Amino acid sequence: MAVYTEVSDEALRAFLAEYDIGRLVSYRGIAEGVENSNYALRTTEADYILTLYERRVDPADLPWFLGLMAHLADHGVVCPQPVAGRDGEKLRPLCGKLAAITSFLPGVWPRRVELAHCAPLGGALAALHLAGANYAAVRPNNLSPQHFQPLLDACLPRADELEPGLGAQLSASLAAILRDWPLVLPVGQIHADLFPDNVFFLDGRISGIIDFYFACTDYYAYDLAICLNAWCFEADGAFNVTKARALLGAYRTLRPLSDAELAALPVLARGAAMRFLLTRLYDWLHTPAGAMVTPKNPLEYWKKLRFHEAAEGVAAYGI
Amino acid sequence: MAVYTEVSDEALRAFLAEYDIGRLVSYRGIAEGVENSNYALRTTEADYILTLYERRVDPADLPWFLGLMAHLADHGVVCPQPVAGRDGEKLRPLCGKLAAITSFLPGVWPRRVELAHCAPLGGALAALHLAGANYAAVRPNNLSPQHFQPLLDACLPRADELEPGLGAQLSASLAAILRDWPLVLPVGQIHADLFPDNVFFLDGRISGIIDFYFACTDYYAYDLAICLNAWCFEADGAFNVTKARALLGAYRTLRPLSDAELAALPVLARGAAMRFLLTRLYDWLHTPAGAMVTPKNPLEYWKKLRFHEAAEGVAAYGI
Repeated sequence: MAVYTEVSDEALRAFLAEYDIGRLVSYRGIAEGVENSNYALRTTEADYILTLYERRVDPADLPWFLGLMAHLADHGVVCPQPVAGRDGEKLRPLCGKLAAITSFLPGVWPRRVELAHCAPLGGALAALHLAGANYAAVRPNNLSPQHFQPLLDACLPRADELEPGLGAQLSASLAAILRDWPLVLPVGQIHADLFPDNVFFLDGRISGIIDFYFACTDYYAYDLAICLNAWCFEADGAFNVTKARALLGAYRTLRPLSDAELAALPVLARGAAMRFLLTRLYDWLHTPAGAMVTPKNPLEYWKKLRFHEAAEGVAAYGI
Repeated sequence: MAVYTEVSDEALRAFLAEYDIGRLVSYRGIAEGVENSNYALRTTEADYILTLYERRVDPADLPWFLGLMAHLADHGVVCPQPVAGRDGEKLRPLCGKLAAITSFLPGVWPRRVELAHCAPLGGALAALHLAGANYAAVRPNNLSPQHFQPLLDACLPRADELEPGLGAQLSASLAAILRDWPLVLPVGQIHADLFPDNVFFLDGRISGIIDFYFACTDYYAYDLAICLNAWCFEADGAFNVTKARALLGAYRTLRPLSDAELAALPVLARGAAMRFLLTRLYDWLHTPAGAMVTPKNPLEYWKKLRFHEAAEGVAAYGI
């Protein structure tokens, strides 16, 4: 469920009057996504997505996100292009929230990841990194390993409800990640949440990359590590090294990885697994009964973390 | 939230292969609606709605519903037109459910009902009744007053949790409805759930009437009574007689009401209020904590019922 804010047609008409995109034809709430409210919006001119930013997004970050999307779209990335109003502004209030209109992207996100998705994904990720290189504004990653301890502390009192001993093992894993985390790697704008439901495919090619609201400035290779976690494990928990090889190979064709990046891949993968494990664990323990969003099972990422901890170097990823 | 069944792209592609409507471009879950799973579906040819029928809909009723929608659409009603596959079938399995594709309708449902909506609504309801007159198949109304007692019995043990004395008062109200219910009135195909979120408007005219999954064969005037309840009360609970007059007046221009229908309007309005009161009360008392659907407050309809009980004849509705 992803409509937290119900928009009246009067409010929407007043909002649209600030834009030069034709008259309202229809709008319907979209069920996908969990952070913001999204509507499929049709006007007499085109289709758009209307997003109302909910409480998890810091309003101060929105100009950076929308600026990055506009920059990437201008540089050939198939991502939502924010639409400016007559006053040049891309962001304005609607029903007590900040809201933006972006272009509609065709395509379908893969409910089941196939090997054929992984090479296009790797290529698109490298292209995104290259296109973002001259977007100068910096947004620090507020979900990097230096920020994990408070999240873990908030979970520790009840972590063992999920699995006996989980809390102590997570503490040890986090200490190792912080000890091994690389100090210097190539840095730039990364998506930081490139899961299958954020990537649309059409006729075997990527037709859209969406949801830039975790994007930030961090190690490029960390984005790859997030994708290894999100795209290369099977439903039974097994790591599919063929998918990883396709993903990494296509990436490296466009943007070669340095020796330091390759050597760091296992710890980056551990950090990425820990990031999703901790936010899911936090939500799992803190989502009130009766909430509209069903929290995702954190133990999926606990399994992934243990795979990476057992990995002996980058060879584990097919390189 | 209205996506109970997650459809994989492979399953959808196999399903679409049975149709001659172009290739898949995109599909997104729609957040509106509470009974079935709905997807906005785009192909290279047009936009459609894909509906998967969930457990509350009796599969045996689906051919009747789809047949009625096709008949009404053929006779000028702006309602979803079911799309037949290459085999002529409009209904087939998808992900363990029965599913159908229907045409996409433009427009926006009114989040706040204005007086200007009520005359178009009355006219569209009369036109729907006239268009359905030669759809011969009968579907009895399984939510008419004769079916209320079991629903009430299931609520009585806990009805007073909502308001002290509610159970006893509902029992008395139901006895009076059953005593006064008319025996003979003009009968035909009625929508039976024509709430504002089932009616799309575009440029001040009705551009779509949707959700025929409560439609049945019953008194035409009962459909009007449902609309009086759903469209003519203000948010503070006050009945707006000007809206009622506009609704009924526009209806009677197209389909005149007999004296018997006019005289029955107050008891029909009591029955309609009781129907929504009881189903909401049942859901309120029986929805498990943590369900994805937030039940609607039944007491809104308890207020409406009391208004109709106090009404002295059809004059209360502006006639």
